[in-house]
Amino acid sequence: MARPYNAFAGGDVGRIEALSDGIFAFAATLLVVDFHTPEAADMHSEAQLLAALSASAPRLIPWLMSLMTLGIFWIGQQTQLNLLERSNRDLSWLHLVFLAVVTALPFTTRLLADFLTYRTAFLVYWANIFLIGACLYATWSYAERAKLIREDAHGETSRAVKRRIVIAQSLYAVGALAGLVSVPVGIAFIILIQLNYAAAPRLPFLWRL
Amino acid sequence: MARPYNAFAGGDVGRIEALSDGIFAFAATLLVVDFHTPEAADMHSEAQLLAALSASAPRLIPWLMSLMTLGIFWIGQQTQLNLLERSNRDLSWLHLVFLAVVTALPFTTRLLADFLTYRTAFLVYWANIFLIGACLYATWSYAERAKLIREDAHGETSRAVKRRIVIAQSLYAVGALAGLVSVPVGIAFIILIQLNYAAAPRLPFLWRL
Amino acid sequence: MARPYNAFAGGDVGRIEALSDGIFAFAATLLVVDFHTPEAADMHSEAQLLAALSASAPRLIPWLMSLMTLGIFWIGQQTQLNLLERSNRDLSWLHLVFLAVVTALPFTTRLLADFLTYRTAFLVYWANIFLIGACLYATWSYAERAKLIREDAHGETSRAVKRRIVIAQSLYAVGALAGLVSVPVGIAFIILIQLNYAAAPRLPFLWRL
Amino acid sequence: MARPYNAFAGGDVGRIEALSDGIFAFAATLLVVDFHTPEAADMHSEAQLLAALSASAPRLIPWLMSLMTLGIFWIGQQTQLNLLERSNRDLSWLHLVFLAVVTALPFTTRLLADFLTYRTAFLVYWANIFLIGACLYATWSYAERAKLIREDAHGETSRAVKRRIVIAQSLYAVGALAGLVSVPVGIAFIILIQLNYAAAPRLPFLWRL
Repeated sequence: MARPYNAFAGGDVGRIEALSDGIFAFAATLLVVDFHTPEAADMHSEAQLLAALSASAPRLIPWLMSLMTLGIFWIGQQTQLNLLERSNRDLSWLHLVFLAVVTALPFTTRLLADFLTYRTAFLVYWANIFLIGACLYATWSYAERAKLIREDAHGETSRAVKRRIVIAQSLYAVGALAGLVSVPVGIAFIILIQLNYAAAPRLPFLWRL
Repeated sequence: MARPYNAFAGGDVGRIEALSDGIFAFAATLLVVDFHTPEAADMHSEAQLLAALSASAPRLIPWLMSLMTLGIFWIGQQTQLNLLERSNRDLSWLHLVFLAVVTALPFTTRLLADFLTYRTAFLVYWANIFLIGACLYATWSYAERAKLIREDAHGETSRAVKRRIVIAQSLYAVGALAGLVSVPVGIAFIILIQLNYAAAPRLPFLWRL
Repeated sequence: MARPYNAFAGGDVGRIEALSDGIFAFAATLLVVDFHTPEAADMHSEAQLLAALSASAPRLIPWLMSLMTLGIFWIGQQTQLNLLERSNRDLSWLHLVFLAVVTALPFTTRLLADFLTYRTAFLVYWANIFLIGACLYATWSYAERAKLIREDAHGETSRAVKRRIVIAQSLYAVGALAGLVSVPVGIAFIILIQLNYAAAPRLPFLWRL
Repeated sequence: MARPYNAFAGGDVGRIEALSDGIFAFAATLLVVDFHTPEAADMHSEAQLLAALSASAPRLIPWLMSLMTLGIFWIGQQTQLNLLERSNRDLSWLHLVFLAVVTALPFTTRLLADFLTYRTAFLVYWANIFLIGACLYATWSYAERAKLIREDAHGETSRAVKRRIVIAQSLYAVGALAGLVSVPVGIAFIILIQLNYAAAPRLPFLWRL
């Protein structure tokens, strides 16, 4: 009987890591491409240049959000991969779906920067965060079910990985609801959530999240 | 007698892997650059923005096709590289040709997105998939002939690697023929083939493909 | 009691290296995207093309500055990472902040190239160098405080790492002050500092910097 | 006495490799960004689209040249790095200069594609190849002088590395001279040289080059 190709395809954790590093690196660098410099022909003084730069300062907000989003999920995925015993082709594909949703972030960031007061742009951005989180949950629960995770990652560690994603996504969803009422409030809420995850303050309650 | 340079040049499998990860990562991220946000000056309401975004939704189709194409061939090449005992400069060059054809994908994707109903654009896109597959077949048959593959990869495994490519490319060719009659049917057919390879459903017949 | 996620998240030095290589590689290559070729329709002779190319030669100055900036900090961060015993999630985040500031360099480079005689553009560029340096100082002093550095990197080596950054940033600050008086002088001064760090001439005084 | 920073900075061959893979991968993928799709509004039939695509077919020539240039020097640098015993900060900087010249290739390629019949564009392109080769010669002769290469790489192997670069650059220089008379002849000559290095035919004379 013929040996099925799928029995030996994929399965290299190191390659998933390397591909992920490339994608996160490009996505982060690509964000800056959307910062356009003022037209040189329109600028006639230092004051004009400064004014033009200040006028595009609000674009910094989605930029910082996206840098934090990339950082949070880069570390989140890294933590999962470090807990894997091995991979297989199905898990590789789930990580490819995760990465595909990550590559959409430069677009949703630009959309939010161009339409910073529009609920539509804000919800598309939130949907991107939600999908990244949902994929990361899927990769872990598949890895656990398929017995691809390390012996010591079962039980408490596995529950912490899943709890982390569920709590974070619940908070983001509250931010999305707040954004339905007022987009600036929604954005501020999401930034606060991200700062909490990035800075991980040693406050007893927040550290547990 | 002088030692020929070609006797010791190239030959590092790890470097081929790292270069490939960079190229696949960048090609995947580059696909999103083609999603343009609507002109801010033209949008005056949420409804207008939503309508403008919906109008460019068909671009999602070639995007998803190309993400799957990249995923399928990234895993396909990875599987081959994992089965290598070592490399040499000729095999490195064959992989460089394979990667060169992969870098063309962002262009053919954009062409198809811009001309989604044109047979010309569809056939150019299919030709890209065909060339990637043909190169991947060439890397393997050269590696086997030059005795660069692992002991246990000869015989059944090697036949599975080649059978996989031949069957997939035959299916894509049927999709190309269908596209000659109707481009939407051709695109739908190719997407179904790709979903099969990405999801690898456990149906006895499809799993064997 | 539940196991806190933050106790086992992040902490992989190899992944920081790989992400950094991707970001520095992409930022360096992106710099060239700002070199526009002359409009083909406007050129009617070799002399015209040569004149058009010469006219944009001043853009080479910020380009070379930024290539040196990237090189200096790529080696600076690499040296730190080589001296680490291990990492943790807080140090990973500090390196992510460092990398985020690095990704801004293609923008500040373009701004300086577009407004080569403007103090505003020059100071924004200097601020970018300053922030990269400040982050690199922060990563090291945190790593030392959190006992993440190698046994033999304490004491003299650690002092050399910090002294290096402080002296370099002091020199850049002098360059920034010079630029307040005359932007060309400020740029020339910064280029000389960078050439010193890149070429590391074996002059007793400069080698110690 | 204070420990000089330069005594322990840089020196990681693996990091040079990873940075190089990122830069070559990005430069190769970036080449395709210059292929513009025809304006959708201007195309009204398959024939028009096919004609528009054919009209930009000459751009394929510099594209293929640059892919081969990248491949040749990626393998050339890889071969050198494989022969290193270790690195130091000076050698790291020489490789950074080499990589900086590589990042210029997408620009010189675009220039040649836009001005395919101009001697100026052709000579700028050739100058880029020449500088990449000169840097690669410099990295090796420095590495040899500074005793950074492996024991078994001295003597015959080292001479082969240097002879390779000198002969190749001599051939490219002949191509440049031919281009002074006729640009198409110069381009054809360089492509033939590159095909020889890429394909490495087993002809006794050419294999020795």
